[in-house]
Amino acid sequence: MEEFKLTTRDEMEAETDKLLEIGRKVGADSWQQRVKNQTPHCRFGEEGICCRICQMGPCRITPKSPRGICGCDAAGIVGRNYLRFTAGGAATHSDHGRSICHTLYLAKEDGNYKVKDPEKLKRIAKEWDIETEGRDIYDVAHEVAETGLMEYGKPFGTQRFLKRAPKHTQEIWEKEEIAPRVIDREVSCSMHMTHMGCSSDPEALARQSLRAGLSDGWGGSMMGTEFSDVLFGTPMPVDTEANLGVMQEDMVNIIVHGHDPSLSEMIVEYAENPEMIALAKSYGAKGINVAGVCCTSNEVAMRHGIPMAGNFLSQENVVLTGACEAIVVDVQCIFPALGPLSKCFHTKFITTSEIARMPDSDFIHFDAENAGENAKKIVKMAIENFQNRKKDLVYIPKLKQKATVGYSYEAIVKTLDTVTNSHVDETGTTKPLNECVKSGIIRGAVAMVGCNNPKVRHDYAHVELMKKLIQNDIVLVVSGCAAQAAAKAGLMSKEAKNLCGDGLKRVCELCDMPPVLHMGSCVDISRMMVLVANLAKDSGWNIDELPVVGCAPEWMSEKAISIGNYVVATGLTTFLGVYPQTKGSEVFDGLLQGGIKDWVGACFHVVEDIDKLGDAMIEEIERKREHLHI
Amino acid sequence: MEEFKLTTRDEMEAETDKLLEIGRKVGADSWQQRVKNQTPHCRFGEEGICCRICQMGPCRITPKSPRGICGCDAAGIVGRNYLRFTAGGAATHSDHGRSICHTLYLAKEDGNYKVKDPEKLKRIAKEWDIETEGRDIYDVAHEVAETGLMEYGKPFGTQRFLKRAPKHTQEIWEKEEIAPRVIDREVSCSMHMTHMGCSSDPEALARQSLRAGLSDGWGGSMMGTEFSDVLFGTPMPVDTEANLGVMQEDMVNIIVHGHDPSLSEMIVEYAENPEMIALAKSYGAKGINVAGVCCTSNEVAMRHGIPMAGNFLSQENVVLTGACEAIVVDVQCIFPALGPLSKCFHTKFITTSEIARMPDSDFIHFDAENAGENAKKIVKMAIENFQNRKKDLVYIPKLKQKATVGYSYEAIVKTLDTVTNSHVDETGTTKPLNECVKSGIIRGAVAMVGCNNPKVRHDYAHVELMKKLIQNDIVLVVSGCAAQAAAKAGLMSKEAKNLCGDGLKRVCELCDMPPVLHMGSCVDISRMMVLVANLAKDSGWNIDELPVVGCAPEWMSEKAISIGNYVVATGLTTFLGVYPQTKGSEVFDGLLQGGIKDWVGACFHVVEDIDKLGDAMIEEIERKREHLHI
Repeated sequence: MEEFKLTTRDEMEAETDKLLEIGRKVGADSWQQRVKNQTPHCRFGEEGICCRICQMGPCRITPKSPRGICGCDAAGIVGRNYLRFTAGGAATHSDHGRSICHTLYLAKEDGNYKVKDPEKLKRIAKEWDIETEGRDIYDVAHEVAETGLMEYGKPFGTQRFLKRAPKHTQEIWEKEEIAPRVIDREVSCSMHMTHMGCSSDPEALARQSLRAGLSDGWGGSMMGTEFSDVLFGTPMPVDTEANLGVMQEDMVNIIVHGHDPSLSEMIVEYAENPEMIALAKSYGAKGINVAGVCCTSNEVAMRHGIPMAGNFLSQENVVLTGACEAIVVDVQCIFPALGPLSKCFHTKFITTSEIARMPDSDFIHFDAENAGENAKKIVKMAIENFQNRKKDLVYIPKLKQKATVGYSYEAIVKTLDTVTNSHVDETGTTKPLNECVKSGIIRGAVAMVGCNNPKVRHDYAHVELMKKLIQNDIVLVVSGCAAQAAAKAGLMSKEAKNLCGDGLKRVCELCDMPPVLHMGSCVDISRMMVLVANLAKDSGWNIDELPVVGCAPEWMSEKAISIGNYVVATGLTTFLGVYPQTKGSEVFDGLLQGGIKDWVGACFHVVEDIDKLGDAMIEEIERKREHLHI
Repeated sequence: MEEFKLTTRDEMEAETDKLLEIGRKVGADSWQQRVKNQTPHCRFGEEGICCRICQMGPCRITPKSPRGICGCDAAGIVGRNYLRFTAGGAATHSDHGRSICHTLYLAKEDGNYKVKDPEKLKRIAKEWDIETEGRDIYDVAHEVAETGLMEYGKPFGTQRFLKRAPKHTQEIWEKEEIAPRVIDREVSCSMHMTHMGCSSDPEALARQSLRAGLSDGWGGSMMGTEFSDVLFGTPMPVDTEANLGVMQEDMVNIIVHGHDPSLSEMIVEYAENPEMIALAKSYGAKGINVAGVCCTSNEVAMRHGIPMAGNFLSQENVVLTGACEAIVVDVQCIFPALGPLSKCFHTKFITTSEIARMPDSDFIHFDAENAGENAKKIVKMAIENFQNRKKDLVYIPKLKQKATVGYSYEAIVKTLDTVTNSHVDETGTTKPLNECVKSGIIRGAVAMVGCNNPKVRHDYAHVELMKKLIQNDIVLVVSGCAAQAAAKAGLMSKEAKNLCGDGLKRVCELCDMPPVLHMGSCVDISRMMVLVANLAKDSGWNIDELPVVGCAPEWMSEKAISIGNYVVATGLTTFLGVYPQTKGSEVFDGLLQGGIKDWVGACFHVVEDIDKLGDAMIEEIERKREHLHI
């Protein structure tokens, strides 16, 4: 057996350079080049002091012009921009959740979509006071789905899932008037508050940012996660592989990219269909290989062990291999660049959602009704495209690592059960983890999430921070592109235990788990919320007392800011490695990085130096431990 | 009797200069100064080719960098910005509508809010298949209100009021897939589509802009209008006065400003309360004078004849008179500048809504439950502030004009009934107007709406265009700040008939109406939609065949763009006097100013030269007439 070794950034970048070299031959553009073209960025935009909210402007704050034409000052402009950024993220995650609700609503015994985890469905139904006894599971599914859809639009009340939080947290939300009402209303309300001539008070804008974020994390995202589990199965630990080397030269390679598993699940299903495999063979391929990029990849990796080709900033690389027959996308984080790029190769760029229409793509409208038929059509298109590969353009880097993924909340509890003495102790709780934390074997946990951003060396911050944290006996729960960064580097291999401090290493051995736990896609940060809620309940500590922090070192999207808001509003101090567009107002920035702590017991910290960022998190965790006298 | 004469812009500006002179003495800032400070504007922002949608950027399109870091091109960036602009407007108008729905839901016999137009309520209930027979009117009101609230969030279906449109229009909306679903979903969906890595296809973005706009015009705004009528009475012609001269030196002047009549109605009520008047007298005032600014002014002018002090760009002037005891605001189009400005005078700047929290204001939270109590508190605050006036700072320009306002759709029909021979012809229709148009006595109509914008000389475009149009026998229906521009100049005086061509003059005389009809606030553009829908039904022509166009010569807010989208999507070609942030993409701009005509039979035209804008509208109307062979 070969000795375990992480894949380094240098190794990955060397391979990326080779791919870019091929790309240049065929006139391909790249994000690396576009970053150069777009640098330097506009300082007004970067600092959040550019206002394009009405047509009197655009206005910019300068020493000469401390107010916009309407009279709004820097704090108001920065705050409005920040709230709109949040609203964009909350709307996006939640609309993904809505789509899953609609899929569940259309699930049927003999349909394209079925209920794969009836027990989870029943648990949710019970939580929501929906009768399950003696009812057909699809009746229950449809009522739960419709009730879920009403969480987007019911005229009164707050989100149902808020009750999952500890009482202390719920009380804070009530007291601070940030308990989210219906999801879409929080989005619309945020847009209204930031309209010309509405709110310019920084506190009001910060408060609504937290509320809109909560409507995402404890609303739309949580439903997205929960109902995806109901439809496609609740993830349990499964082995897979990660990095570009998962693409296979002698097979039809289909890359699924985006976020909503409704599409990718069907692609995976049809790629395993004997008829399709036979067709692939008839075209000279050995078979069909599906691999993922971005959160769609997380979804199918967690449930089927589908390999992960890469994360956000790898998306062009999969096309650049020259071995990608089709890149099939649904929504979010899809480079429009894939259109022109795919035209430089034989790759079919297939868009499927009305939400994400892009030029230079083949559009195959995908919905619950036509899912089977169209998934088949897409797989067939990819197969038929195998013959169009330009062999001299094919180069698949040999990089890949093993990974064990699929640590849903349920999977974590089940893993903990394996080290629980069921004769003495209660099973099905987070108590063993609490015990480890109390005793100091594990010092704490970091929820590391978020994107890639060219402002940070690709994956470098994720991987370096994870290495530092596990060395310091801090366990990681990760999701999104952070998860793929870990997997590509090898940190989700069980052998990565050897990189841990003694305490965490022992826990990894006892639980037979890697030190970096893959909790899913970016909507699945809701799983982390459930985890900390139960850690708090099981320990008797408040969430803001737990030695747990959030971290998004390479974040890029509006969704990440929405996430940050709900993670902080839930009581977890959150560390950002990229500065949000708030530098232009000390007042507003000061609220985010300090003031809001008085409301919710947590706040943001922005630390752009990655090394210092790691230290700051360790310090924060040790401070929390001290406060708990553990 | 004095001879009728319009007030000119020069006269108004001379007075504004005097006010600014006083302002300078006390260190007051002004929009005129801030415009200077903010000029020139950022070209990237003005042209729509600046993208701040994710944190990889900001990105800007230049010849050197034709794509953002994600690969999005100018058409995608401009389209996304435009759709977000629309979504901001649709959310804002509709949230106003939602607030009215909530007020209706809380209306009761002995409450702060009552049903003032039960007949209108019953008509709407009937339209919506809600039982009215034998029911308490408040039961009906609550069911209608709750049904209205569900238009924001029901999981399935499209807007109920779409059925008010002619069949031909409804078919277009269905075919083009722009029939709006629930309002908040269209907002969230717009945010999702424009999130990083979602839609960059210009057609998809333009289509969603139309749909989001329609959810405003035929959804949120229409409910805002209809339920305001139910609660506060359907406007009927009423005499009032307009311009700064309506403020009174010897009285307590309370200015209501904003949009939602729930607040202003209560202020008006308490300002007429004998106890309050007595209190005012005890402070040495002769009484209490309420006057309005912006759309709130339109609301109370139309229903109570409350005078209109000014429109959007007059809002600082009311404080600069030194005679404003309180400026009481709810939501939208309120300059944050009023905070610091009011501190230069004795004026109380009173904010009342969680949606519009502003620094340097007194916040008195106003809602349906505490409306009476808090309205009284506000009126009292104003009265008690009378003693703090600095007499040497008081200067009220003598400018004012008479105006007849209150031309709701119902009022227009009633006015037309007066010239209908009820023995021969059906009453309660728009047919007499159609007859005038067919015969050519009236050539057509222009719906002139929208804001002020310092990019256009204040009110100049509105007034000059109106003068030109009525001279050419084109009747005007107007709303928002356009309406106040007309009123301040004198164009809503019945005597303005003398400025009309012979045909329109005769109609004004027969109907005893001004040539420029005040249809209300900016949400009330829904009244214009009802009007054109019925003109189409009554004439047998399609809406896009009617010799009617829309015009927003001085628009500024996101709401105006949302309005533009629904007016165009309803079939009325719309002329803009200010260029939207779309110049940066010929493709997207070309859709708006041409391509979308293939979908909905109408499009935008941007004409920045006001004289040419007038000619273009007249030409368009004559072209329509030609096409109808009339």
